[in-house]
Amino acid sequence: MDKTNFKHKIQLSVRNYEIDWQGIVHNAIYLHYFEVGRVQYLTDIGATVDINSINSSSKVVLVRNEIDYRMPARFRDVLNIYSRISAIRNTSFDFESILENNATQEIVGENKAVHVWLDPRTSRPTPVPQEFRNLVRRYEGERCRIEPYTIVV
Amino acid sequence: MDKTNFKHKIQLSVRNYEIDWQGIVHNAIYLHYFEVGRVQYLTDIGATVDINSINSSSKVVLVRNEIDYRMPARFRDVLNIYSRISAIRNTSFDFESILENNATQEIVGENKAVHVWLDPRTSRPTPVPQEFRNLVRRYEGERCRIEPYTIVV
Amino acid sequence: MDKTNFKHKIQLSVRNYEIDWQGIVHNAIYLHYFEVGRVQYLTDIGATVDINSINSSSKVVLVRNEIDYRMPARFRDVLNIYSRISAIRNTSFDFESILENNATQEIVGENKAVHVWLDPRTSRPTPVPQEFRNLVRRYEGERCRIEPYTIVV
Amino acid sequence: MDKTNFKHKIQLSVRNYEIDWQGIVHNAIYLHYFEVGRVQYLTDIGATVDINSINSSSKVVLVRNEIDYRMPARFRDVLNIYSRISAIRNTSFDFESILENNATQEIVGENKAVHVWLDPRTSRPTPVPQEFRNLVRRYEGERCRIEPYTIVV
Repeated sequence: MDKTNFKHKIQLSVRNYEIDWQGIVHNAIYLHYFEVGRVQYLTDIGATVDINSINSSSKVVLVRNEIDYRMPARFRDVLNIYSRISAIRNTSFDFESILENNATQEIVGENKAVHVWLDPRTSRPTPVPQEFRNLVRRYEGERCRIEPYTIVV
Repeated sequence: MDKTNFKHKIQLSVRNYEIDWQGIVHNAIYLHYFEVGRVQYLTDIGATVDINSINSSSKVVLVRNEIDYRMPARFRDVLNIYSRISAIRNTSFDFESILENNATQEIVGENKAVHVWLDPRTSRPTPVPQEFRNLVRRYEGERCRIEPYTIVV
Repeated sequence: MDKTNFKHKIQLSVRNYEIDWQGIVHNAIYLHYFEVGRVQYLTDIGATVDINSINSSSKVVLVRNEIDYRMPARFRDVLNIYSRISAIRNTSFDFESILENNATQEIVGENKAVHVWLDPRTSRPTPVPQEFRNLVRRYEGERCRIEPYTIVV
Repeated sequence: MDKTNFKHKIQLSVRNYEIDWQGIVHNAIYLHYFEVGRVQYLTDIGATVDINSINSSSKVVLVRNEIDYRMPARFRDVLNIYSRISAIRNTSFDFESILENNATQEIVGENKAVHVWLDPRTSRPTPVPQEFRNLVRRYEGERCRIEPYTIVV
């Protein structure tokens, strides 16, 4: 992933209890970090992050995670998390994230997280709402590939 | 993934503290479950699972995780974890896993985890040792695609 | 604590991701184990364990935890968790737990967890309901010290 | 505990994955927070925090935790963690901690964590070294009650 495509950046420090028996951040903790970035991103673009909606069975579900581990992260490392919505399709959208060691600027990891929008009544995929598309378009401009909205009949 | 390709199966129960704010198993916990299966698999095929080697910076590193989330898992669900090494290349190998709801036989999630073998002195990729290839061959037979060993000169 | 006072026992295995950088179960994970025991205890005595009530701000809150660490627990240790409600006072009750290494019968840790019953409307302490007292009395008999119910006026 | 007795303060934010099924920080996570404060405290007073020593079986072990839960903490709450070593006895010492909601100044929780110093060769309690006592005395002055060093013969 190309860091120059990302506008949104937050920073956090590795806490001691996130270190595993090998003295490095456990591979599952990376998912926590990427999620912290995504939740903040949604807040910052003005999407109402309902604590009961994002990633939930009711409205938006995470259906796929891809993580590339580039470098270990260690206790007290300061990490930058870059997040962006890179694509919106008819009923799904992609979050991309980069985890970067702030001191060395080395890439620690990369993530692609695919989400699907569900109709809360039927739990079936439904088009990503126009309002959400507008919020992403306003924030990302042309960096996000947004496919046209299709009415499912 | 096709369940009939998997010989190795363990079972665990979802514990209450693995449930997130939505009442379902958090997406990062899936990585814990898949790892539990892998560690048991390595033990069962006779690979010496050094607590300081698997996934460590010293010998074998996890470089990529792909997770597909099919169904939520909930408190007290009994889950079956199927694990196999599906491919060994010159310096890397793939673990595949299926997470299954024991009661309903529904697939909860799937995982592919790519590992690279490192020379502990140089931290550079080195061929997967013949001894490890033999252990996998003995357990998996023809189900695992094993590329020939190449001496790097 | 005296193990002979405990009727309720469950068993679990230490999972690899519960191990910290020192190769032993992290001190916070003990609280997870004790909680697993408590939730199962409540189920087994017939108390309706609402996923949204126990330990929640709405009805029953955990107000104090005391943990004594006796021995480290390690990867793959099989642990027995003994749980009991040892005392019910007017608006609060105590859970006691023992964590035991199944192989060596050594005590790994002990816990006392104090809970307070709240009126969900006012969030103020309210007497532990008679129905709950009866369930505990039926299961624990005279082993649980139950103070008489006082009507707060 | 009296906040005015504490010199050492750090700050952190509640991250979304630390929230449990009730929408509040899980009771075990409090131990993580207190530990973050202690580790930073030791660093700041100049005690060499060996990643393999503090809380380990080799030199210093945590033997008891007492936690009082005063208020729930929620997603995005900014928390202040106050830490101090309040007492040093012959072979053991006490850490005290306060967790405070930064916005409301309300006490979220309190912790007392008792540690024992071990002789790494015999794993038996040994006097807390004079060097460590000096570091604490220099930082805490008379706020820490330090009992005289006793040679065990």
